[in-house]
Amino acid sequence: MEIVIPLYERFTALDAVGPYQVLRHLPEARVRFLGPEAGTIMCDDLVLGLLAEGRWEDCGSPDVIVVPGGIGSRAHLADERLLGWLRGAHETSAWTTSVCTGSLLLAAAGILEGLEATTHWLAMDRLADLGARPSRQRVVEQGKIITAAGVSSGIDMALRLAERAAGTEAAQAVQLAIEYDPQPPFDAGSPDRAPAAVVELVRRAQQAEERTVANPA
Amino acid sequence: MEIVIPLYERFTALDAVGPYQVLRHLPEARVRFLGPEAGTIMCDDLVLGLLAEGRWEDCGSPDVIVVPGGIGSRAHLADERLLGWLRGAHETSAWTTSVCTGSLLLAAAGILEGLEATTHWLAMDRLADLGARPSRQRVVEQGKIITAAGVSSGIDMALRLAERAAGTEAAQAVQLAIEYDPQPPFDAGSPDRAPAAVVELVRRAQQAEERTVANPA
Repeated sequence: MEIVIPLYERFTALDAVGPYQVLRHLPEARVRFLGPEAGTIMCDDLVLGLLAEGRWEDCGSPDVIVVPGGIGSRAHLADERLLGWLRGAHETSAWTTSVCTGSLLLAAAGILEGLEATTHWLAMDRLADLGARPSRQRVVEQGKIITAAGVSSGIDMALRLAERAAGTEAAQAVQLAIEYDPQPPFDAGSPDRAPAAVVELVRRAQQAEERTVANPA
Repeated sequence: MEIVIPLYERFTALDAVGPYQVLRHLPEARVRFLGPEAGTIMCDDLVLGLLAEGRWEDCGSPDVIVVPGGIGSRAHLADERLLGWLRGAHETSAWTTSVCTGSLLLAAAGILEGLEATTHWLAMDRLADLGARPSRQRVVEQGKIITAAGVSSGIDMALRLAERAAGTEAAQAVQLAIEYDPQPPFDAGSPDRAPAAVVELVRRAQQAEERTVANPA
């Protein structure tokens, strides 16, 4: 099972690494990180770099596609090279998935037209603008397409995919291997339950980040 | 706040990236990935590589240390270069932390002598052999030392650390930013609750991995 995680500058690390850490344990799984070019691709804060072993086009028909999100997704919403690769890979994939604003790229490629999908809670309007029907579920399945909410949700999505692709026991074994028995210290992971002041804080921080990327110093 | 994540060959990606994704959002945080040498450091499956911006010694007194685990930790249990760096950095750190078998390295450096600590559920005996008192809690705090259980627990640990270092509101803001509202599809993340057959499957897979690393083909 060939699993491609297409990277691009300013993706969010956990969006990619969460699903990788789950899927890499599946029997016969081969995960490939690919980029616009082979080499180091920097994450959204330009601090962490992940190695892309080759170019997106080096694998045209993966079994599984996992598209990470990140502030850098915005720069690719009209990038025909990436969107065309996604469209082509989706034609023959067994599963096409995204985490966070990775779904904006799937939508921009036309893959989510009229379908239910999810994304980071701050990007729901943009997802609708691109033709999908936003859902507030953490993981949304539409046939072979699975989209996940913000950043950390990629772990839950990948466990769901693991079950579909390799069965319940294999998926549970991965969950146990990575000891995924979450115990967050607060109940603040959803805008519906986080304190209003915290929601506002995150909203403002996100707007500031979007401005920085739109108008780099 | 300078946060150093010391990498080594065959570390586990999520052990490092989970805490990074949390801590990078803290005010004034500067995360640095350092390695035995600057350059790409490969994860435990030798598929994913992360960029180390410099050598461990390039930062001798970080505010926060986050030691990831991984099958590669075994090769460093008597590596005086890494253990000496850990000892020195721990002398002046505000927080010294580990994820998964990263605690074996802290213990080997003498930092956990007689203290309660945790690690991956399959490495508890080894942690005891190295002088710590193993605990089955997911996150264990002993003064400025915080150890976390297997792989994914680093996210919970880092949120706890975020609260200690920057306050509750800042920690909740990070949790919301990464939408950490976990919904695992199974209750199989702990050996106490996973089906016995699954526990056995993971135990055998781990033993096979240890043999591979001890006797590479």
